[in-house]
Amino acid sequence: MATLASIKNNCRKVICIGRNYADHVKELNNQRPKQPFFFLKPPSSILLPSEGSVLRPKGVNLHFEIELGLVIGKTVRDLNENDEWQSAIEQYVLAIDMTGRNVQEEAKKKGLPWSIAKGYDTFLPLSGPISREKITDPHGIELYLKVNGEVKQEDNTELMLFRIPRQLSDISKVMTLEKGDIILTGTPKGVGPVVTGDVMEAGIRIGGKEVEEAKMRVE
Amino acid sequence: MATLASIKNNCRKVICIGRNYADHVKELNNQRPKQPFFFLKPPSSILLPSEGSVLRPKGVNLHFEIELGLVIGKTVRDLNENDEWQSAIEQYVLAIDMTGRNVQEEAKKKGLPWSIAKGYDTFLPLSGPISREKITDPHGIELYLKVNGEVKQEDNTELMLFRIPRQLSDISKVMTLEKGDIILTGTPKGVGPVVTGDVMEAGIRIGGKEVEEAKMRVE
Ligand SMILES: [Mg+2]
Ligand SMILES: [Mg+2]
Ligand SMILES: [Mg+2]
Repeated sequence: MATLASIKNNCRKVICIGRNYADHVKELNNQRPKQPFFFLKPPSSILLPSEGSVLRPKGVNLHFEIELGLVIGKTVRDLNENDEWQSAIEQYVLAIDMTGRNVQEEAKKKGLPWSIAKGYDTFLPLSGPISREKITDPHGIELYLKVNGEVKQEDNTELMLFRIPRQLSDISKVMTLEKGDIILTGTPKGVGPVVTGDVMEAGIRIGGKEVEEAKMRVE
Repeated sequence: MATLASIKNNCRKVICIGRNYADHVKELNNQRPKQPFFFLKPPSSILLPSEGSVLRPKGVNLHFEIELGLVIGKTVRDLNENDEWQSAIEQYVLAIDMTGRNVQEEAKKKGLPWSIAKGYDTFLPLSGPISREKITDPHGIELYLKVNGEVKQEDNTELMLFRIPRQLSDISKVMTLEKGDIILTGTPKGVGPVVTGDVMEAGIRIGGKEVEEAKMRVE
């Protein structure tokens, strides 16, 4: 299994699905998408557990979004939704899609790209790698995120509006997926702000049981 | 000097400056930006001269944008506009920022990211690498692009609204630049559609003289 450092080194693009949980769409007053849409974060935004804290740029309202991440294991192009898709995934990671919410809202209003709001250094903390054997059904796991001990996000991936094969299909019809690419599958409801000094703890539970590799603690 | 194949292999992000020539801002009825903004194209969109044609996805109004590209040679973080910046650039490339204009216009209207409009496979044709010795002043070269022999774009990089040190500064304060990253510095006026079968020819002139390495021909 690839180490986390090699995941960072080998990553050439991070593709993030937007608005993939109905209650999260509502909480930000967004339109529910008719098809998956996605955006890119740069690999330079990845923050490994050993690399310290998320940095809040001056004037930025920093929001957390807990998401299940897929690490791609091979070249994938034009996948169909009903094709075998499991073998495209080499392993999983838990990820926090840190977002400059005020920067994003201004971009949305002006019709500008989201890349700055999503792309600052340290805006993509990752957990340790999680093997496919641990996550036999990625559509049936619970993601959670706490801030200073208080639960903020806690939902099951069964609530995804577009499931992983549909995501892989739609993305790979636009851009070829390459070994090492990371896909973030969207965030459930409960996103909110953090400030310097806050501690985010996040993880995955399967059938109520904590997955040790997925445990994250980020300041 | 790095070969073009190694430029593609080593590229981990492509950062594109938007609206950086006044007449191009006007032709698309856009607002002139108060500061540089930028978006990402995935490395998977790079098309080398040996790799065939730009592919127009079904239903997409495909536009060309000729741009001077910078290939980054070292890690750059928090550069100031007045710092020495030339050494950050390892070499230059000429690039066409292919854009799904209707996809982008719809994204702009809905406040959605530009990543799909900009990120399809083959949407980033590159010329051969051009050494720094050839381009002693990147703010004083002429870019041109012809379609089927007819000149569509032809302007000098002296018209950039934000010059390269400002671009490097603004980008590197958001995301760390890494060796191999590519920056597209914006397109002059004259962008327009191409259809399957059209031939784009592009190049750079310095003092009226063609730079051989920059010559491109893409179908
Ligand atoms: Mg997200
Ligand atoms: Mg974008
Ligand atoms: Mg452009």
